[in-house]
Amino acid sequence: MKVGFIGLGAMGSAMASNLIAAGHTVTVWNRSEAAAEKLASLGAKTVRTPDRAAQGDVLHSMLANDQAVREVFLDGALLDAMDPGTVHVNHATISVGLARHLAEEHAKRGLDYVAAPVFGRPDVAAAGKLNMLVAGQSAAIEKAKPLLDLMAGKLWPMGELPERANVVKLAGNFMIVTAIESLAEASTLVRAYDVNATDFIELMTSTLFASPVYQGYGKAIAEQRFTPPGFSLPLGLKDVMLAQEAGFAQQVPMPLAGVLRDSLLEGLADGAEGMDVAALARVSARRANLDRRSKG
Amino acid sequence: MKVGFIGLGAMGSAMASNLIAAGHTVTVWNRSEAAAEKLASLGAKTVRTPDRAAQGDVLHSMLANDQAVREVFLDGALLDAMDPGTVHVNHATISVGLARHLAEEHAKRGLDYVAAPVFGRPDVAAAGKLNMLVAGQSAAIEKAKPLLDLMAGKLWPMGELPERANVVKLAGNFMIVTAIESLAEASTLVRAYDVNATDFIELMTSTLFASPVYQGYGKAIAEQRFTPPGFSLPLGLKDVMLAQEAGFAQQVPMPLAGVLRDSLLEGLADGAEGMDVAALARVSARRANLDRRSKG
Amino acid sequence: MKVGFIGLGAMGSAMASNLIAAGHTVTVWNRSEAAAEKLASLGAKTVRTPDRAAQGDVLHSMLANDQAVREVFLDGALLDAMDPGTVHVNHATISVGLARHLAEEHAKRGLDYVAAPVFGRPDVAAAGKLNMLVAGQSAAIEKAKPLLDLMAGKLWPMGELPERANVVKLAGNFMIVTAIESLAEASTLVRAYDVNATDFIELMTSTLFASPVYQGYGKAIAEQRFTPPGFSLPLGLKDVMLAQEAGFAQQVPMPLAGVLRDSLLEGLADGAEGMDVAALARVSARRANLDRRSKG
Amino acid sequence: MKVGFIGLGAMGSAMASNLIAAGHTVTVWNRSEAAAEKLASLGAKTVRTPDRAAQGDVLHSMLANDQAVREVFLDGALLDAMDPGTVHVNHATISVGLARHLAEEHAKRGLDYVAAPVFGRPDVAAAGKLNMLVAGQSAAIEKAKPLLDLMAGKLWPMGELPERANVVKLAGNFMIVTAIESLAEASTLVRAYDVNATDFIELMTSTLFASPVYQGYGKAIAEQRFTPPGFSLPLGLKDVMLAQEAGFAQQVPMPLAGVLRDSLLEGLADGAEGMDVAALARVSARRANLDRRSKG
Repeated sequence: MKVGFIGLGAMGSAMASNLIAAGHTVTVWNRSEAAAEKLASLGAKTVRTPDRAAQGDVLHSMLANDQAVREVFLDGALLDAMDPGTVHVNHATISVGLARHLAEEHAKRGLDYVAAPVFGRPDVAAAGKLNMLVAGQSAAIEKAKPLLDLMAGKLWPMGELPERANVVKLAGNFMIVTAIESLAEASTLVRAYDVNATDFIELMTSTLFASPVYQGYGKAIAEQRFTPPGFSLPLGLKDVMLAQEAGFAQQVPMPLAGVLRDSLLEGLADGAEGMDVAALARVSARRANLDRRSKG
Repeated sequence: MKVGFIGLGAMGSAMASNLIAAGHTVTVWNRSEAAAEKLASLGAKTVRTPDRAAQGDVLHSMLANDQAVREVFLDGALLDAMDPGTVHVNHATISVGLARHLAEEHAKRGLDYVAAPVFGRPDVAAAGKLNMLVAGQSAAIEKAKPLLDLMAGKLWPMGELPERANVVKLAGNFMIVTAIESLAEASTLVRAYDVNATDFIELMTSTLFASPVYQGYGKAIAEQRFTPPGFSLPLGLKDVMLAQEAGFAQQVPMPLAGVLRDSLLEGLADGAEGMDVAALARVSARRANLDRRSKG
Repeated sequence: MKVGFIGLGAMGSAMASNLIAAGHTVTVWNRSEAAAEKLASLGAKTVRTPDRAAQGDVLHSMLANDQAVREVFLDGALLDAMDPGTVHVNHATISVGLARHLAEEHAKRGLDYVAAPVFGRPDVAAAGKLNMLVAGQSAAIEKAKPLLDLMAGKLWPMGELPERANVVKLAGNFMIVTAIESLAEASTLVRAYDVNATDFIELMTSTLFASPVYQGYGKAIAEQRFTPPGFSLPLGLKDVMLAQEAGFAQQVPMPLAGVLRDSLLEGLADGAEGMDVAALARVSARRANLDRRSKG
Repeated sequence: MKVGFIGLGAMGSAMASNLIAAGHTVTVWNRSEAAAEKLASLGAKTVRTPDRAAQGDVLHSMLANDQAVREVFLDGALLDAMDPGTVHVNHATISVGLARHLAEEHAKRGLDYVAAPVFGRPDVAAAGKLNMLVAGQSAAIEKAKPLLDLMAGKLWPMGELPERANVVKLAGNFMIVTAIESLAEASTLVRAYDVNATDFIELMTSTLFASPVYQGYGKAIAEQRFTPPGFSLPLGLKDVMLAQEAGFAQQVPMPLAGVLRDSLLEGLADGAEGMDVAALARVSARRANLDRRSKG
């Protein structure tokens, strides 16, 4: 199949490399060219403008956020340049509002639109083992499925409305940030009683909470290691705010999200812009002023 | 060893049965006698008053809450009736304040005191696989260890101050209730977008959150099955408030705990007194008035 | 002076009428023409397009929200149609972000921009007694001052950066909504103890909280009278969210605002779209399920 | 009338002095004798034990908190020493739970019990202008009324159940602390935009919020003057927690109270133990890390 791929950050590059490795002809474009050249060395064809990557059967995109998607597809008029019948598979974590708008704009132009956001870090992407949410018209999904299977360990169908895959992705990220804040507050509490945070976290994450999210972030919190960021704190805040926005649009109060928003914002105010979301543990410790004590 | 066991609810009975099965002479007492008789049929010796259960080398107790512990040990003067050198192992989930007070009262009387709260449900207790936190003087723990090993899959030492085991237990229960509220809010959000809660929860609890707590409560939420309670909503509220109290005593703000408290209270106000903590999903759905919509 | 006025809702009409009454030549425009005609009967000159209202020395605008301001001034290209040197006085409650953007867009075109949001209801506006916040270049303010004095009981200078007047307006509205939620929660509490809400509110608002905001909203809550809305619940939510947005832009956590947002959203979900912000009392009572009780 | 007065802090002394000035024979007792001696110089009779102050027709008490009331009246067995028919008027701010318990204990012994908590600072008390909530049996209130009128500018009857006066007092204090936190968050927001907090607070407290609470605390916040405390931060936290406890007992969620609790606790953790509740402004500024900026 003739395939295009736009957006070659750590995730996009890893995902595209699986398509190339399987023998597909993949045309890639990225705003900064360095990333594209790395994929060229794996066999991708690089182009100077995104519309030239969009001339295949399926166009994948993995852009950073709403703004980048808007700039490339709407303001940049990429949608206008695509041929009817092309399937656009959007892997980005975007707002529900933009998801709905994109679905309409694709439909107007006879383009197929599939939302396929993913859970998983770059190493999981490289291994082709992502958990991929998929929502869109069945025919479009069917056409893209051989490609999606190369990138995902499992596809999770979420129906025909693309926005549903996006709201599930946001709900999942909300749960991740909640888990981290929960680890943060609980660790601060036990530390105030001179319990070693590492002992506490090892207990929790090897028993009741023996799952990837708790183990990964728990380790970072135990070691007070907040850089380099895997899931950066500003990105965590962005996703919590997108979850709130999705809640607002359907009149769903989310009191936990309100707490997360403020804690993350407090982290930013305290200089955690370059840190991982795990730095919520720092915010919590500061709030309790743990440092003033002679405690573990 | 001559062993006593006080407090024979579902957990206490399962724990005591492991001591009996291992051949120990176990004298049991319970406020209501029916539970004691069941253990008698397994080989326990039953007595009419708690002081007679407290005449062995080690006395275990697994009472319901602060009030029950106070009534039996302090108001009921059981402590005064125990011989110096006896080890009291308290498995109950109690406040940090009471834990500290009990440590002092035992010390005054030359009694050894070990706090050993547990994570695990009655079936785990019956299998002798509990995760047991242990804090107290080393010598006392050493003496009780053969008994603890019969009840626990793993012992987690938390130092010499008994209250530390209790604060860890409370921090753990706080994390459990947070996880449930997180599942509740996230499920309500996706349901407002017509995503099936079962699909969403299966996704989350088989990937990022593939751990016992999320899987157990996630299933209950997906099935909207809130009775009979495993971990009852009023008990969840009690534990969140004990965590807040522990935070207060050491000046540790816990904003998530504040949200949990209000959601649980709202559940009680709406008739969830006899339900599981999973009924937080009902509170969340009511807040968003989900029922007014024709949605999944 | 030759004056234009755009946006003739209840507030805008009352404000413009004071300019007319003072003998100024006022050219007015409003999206729906009925409102403009009413002012014509007072002596205003009506025009069919906003650019014709913008040809005087000073243009006042009192549009509903960010969207309306964007549509008329930016998308509708009104700014491009104005002559350099014209002073635009924007009385609307808008976001800090839009305020900043407007300041830049005016400057680019050699137009003077003054932000002058107001506190006060339509009857106060009609009496020319508004509290008016004013921020912008001194020369521009000086030019508009004779007009502002006709509408305001008092001008509150906030410096040269227009956005400062807007953030103050948002902070004030945040305080108003907080006061209402405070009355709501406190009333629910005392009602749960069979204290009459009217007695309680009379006590509070004639002593410690003897101020316009508490007295006005307190009366509505005591009488459970939530329609017709003065300050509508959706508008209250909009302003709280604008305050949060202003907080976000400067990394200022506002935990009270998070609570307000969720309570207002819960109100919307429960059908309070057409009610006053005072309907927060209904939300609070529902949360405590007060109706199930036989209580005052 | 023969009157006793127990508890001679700043408030109690001022209140008792009005009784003396009106010519009543007042017997006073205080834990530390210095305060009692000051009243003796005004004409009071001092005694060594509280039971001797309780032998008149009416006994007033103004003790610091639940603990002090319990110690004197219950543990100290003062109730047992009082003659049937004596009226005890309790002016303290205590928990609803203790209020209920005291009502029962008085009834058992044939003693009359009136709850009469007050709003107002010591200077208002000295002027005999307190706002006094009154709840209890009519006959008892009738008997005490001539005395209450000497201390209060106005009596606010709250029915026959004493606890109702107490819950109203707690609801009022909750509203006061909310108002302060509201001023704190709003001031921090505008300060982050370089608006002078003093200008902002003057605007708010001379218009929409022109009431004693906002003006008093607003001034302290504008001046960043947090000592000496009028209403101390630990006392504010105590009262917010008593309001939460009252809410818990009747299943009333109070999300604002949760926020207040955490902010106050954060203040304590940051060393505000000796400061006024107005120091919530310090907590809010710290949360936004305002100091790192070159801002007003």
